[in-house]
Amino acid sequence: MSLLVVGSIALDSVYTPFGETADAPGGSAVFFSAAGVILHPVQVVGVVGTDYPLGALKALEARGVDLSGVEQAPGESFRWKAKYSYDLASRETLETRLGVFADFRPKLPPKFRDARYLFLGNIDPELQLGVLDQVKQPALVACDTMNYWIHSKRDLLLELLRHIDILMINDSEARELSGDWNIYRAARWVLERGPRMTVIKQGEHGALLVNRDTTFKVPAYPLQEVFDPTGAGDAFAGGFMAYLASTKDLAEPNLRRAMVYGAALGSFAVEAFGVQGLEHVTLAEVRARVRAFKELVHFEADAPP
Amino acid sequence: MSLLVVGSIALDSVYTPFGETADAPGGSAVFFSAAGVILHPVQVVGVVGTDYPLGALKALEARGVDLSGVEQAPGESFRWKAKYSYDLASRETLETRLGVFADFRPKLPPKFRDARYLFLGNIDPELQLGVLDQVKQPALVACDTMNYWIHSKRDLLLELLRHIDILMINDSEARELSGDWNIYRAARWVLERGPRMTVIKQGEHGALLVNRDTTFKVPAYPLQEVFDPTGAGDAFAGGFMAYLASTKDLAEPNLRRAMVYGAALGSFAVEAFGVQGLEHVTLAEVRARVRAFKELVHFEADAPP
Repeated sequence: MSLLVVGSIALDSVYTPFGETADAPGGSAVFFSAAGVILHPVQVVGVVGTDYPLGALKALEARGVDLSGVEQAPGESFRWKAKYSYDLASRETLETRLGVFADFRPKLPPKFRDARYLFLGNIDPELQLGVLDQVKQPALVACDTMNYWIHSKRDLLLELLRHIDILMINDSEARELSGDWNIYRAARWVLERGPRMTVIKQGEHGALLVNRDTTFKVPAYPLQEVFDPTGAGDAFAGGFMAYLASTKDLAEPNLRRAMVYGAALGSFAVEAFGVQGLEHVTLAEVRARVRAFKELVHFEADAPP
Repeated sequence: MSLLVVGSIALDSVYTPFGETADAPGGSAVFFSAAGVILHPVQVVGVVGTDYPLGALKALEARGVDLSGVEQAPGESFRWKAKYSYDLASRETLETRLGVFADFRPKLPPKFRDARYLFLGNIDPELQLGVLDQVKQPALVACDTMNYWIHSKRDLLLELLRHIDILMINDSEARELSGDWNIYRAARWVLERGPRMTVIKQGEHGALLVNRDTTFKVPAYPLQEVFDPTGAGDAFAGGFMAYLASTKDLAEPNLRRAMVYGAALGSFAVEAFGVQGLEHVTLAEVRARVRAFKELVHFEADAPP
């Protein structure tokens, strides 16, 4: 089952207490595909400028990421610069230069239009709707967004919600979108507006999967060393969607497993700077971490007789 | 197995966006015993002033709380006044009047000295050490503390750590105590100083049980309505300790179950103002919630063949 992601392809400059990167490959589509491709091939749609070090994406291509939907446009690539607090719990965006991303109008190569699993990374909801129109018959559509779109393009975002299966957002965004600080009521608010499910990302506290009848919680993997939280949410999305695409099973037990695969990939992402943490991760390592998650939360509700 | 708690017995005035209480029974020993007694009888050591409405504690006594260690001293009762933020995520202490608590020197009635399970609520570590000296042969000693003691009585607190089995504290306190913002490293720091285990309370994100070899995470129960977070941590402690006292099993699987019982009791505590939320909770309701926790986190790591 083909898996398609549309999102940003950026050059990130990130400062953490443990080091820094300068113009390192990043962006939602890059983190998503670097994580997802460990489980399943990924097709990418995005845009880079003439200054983008395309060689940096070759490693992804070699692993099974189809970059034929990545357009190179005249101008500068999207650049993002941010600084994390000493405990990595918060970050300040120092600079955002949209470059060619400002005029990005995603156009899917014909073969990408058959994608069955679609992830709409955090871009303008108008563009997300435009991508959705180009995909013929998706089996599952998930979508991310951010505060900026919640405020500036709320109507289009609400329109988008009517056409997707899963809204996958941060807890603070769920609160802003719904106007409700209680995260479970915020999730209900989302479900009343279209999506069958919502995945709420809670950073170092893991993630929630809420559908009409059930709630599933996966904690974050316990890490004594975290180097760079950048991209963790997109790596989570990549693991989640790629697991579903590879197993072709949208029943609840498999959705729960997909959440754990997402959390496992998110944990590998934060253990190194940029996408490096994901580059050498093997499927066996991912599976071992999924089993470790099981051990982390396992208990028997009833004592043995 | 007898279960003993030493802690504060207070009159709380709490303001939340949903209502307020004035001079309502509270304090660590009260929340602990109101939760714990659902699972197992609880013995209480504490002090109240001549102004304390002892009738308010009669309901606890009727349910199996032994108040014969509660001393009534000349003077005012301990009073605490606090205001929560709109989302209940933070609170400001408006007033603390120690009253008779300032001169409290816990003295255990002879029959309490045989207690096997001991919880040292959040009081001066000097007093906690004094109580520990009076208990003959405890099977399990757990202890809470707070920022105030971490700063003002650090040496005594470190001395206490050498004599207890479980340090049970908030995540922010674990960070302050250890000087490490990473919660898993902070937990290791604690384990290197005496306790066999540490329970780290994470508020709306649940709690962690960390021992030398394993980590267990229980999330908080998903609640769409939370009215008053006061006492949740002590109710958690009460559920945790009372479950262990009632089952007399300190093996890992049972410690994990105790964590879930603690989380269940904590969730009932926050659903009403003061200790009211706990007063009418039945054992069957607690067990049903424990099973709901199982459903909340359950997944199979391997798909069926």
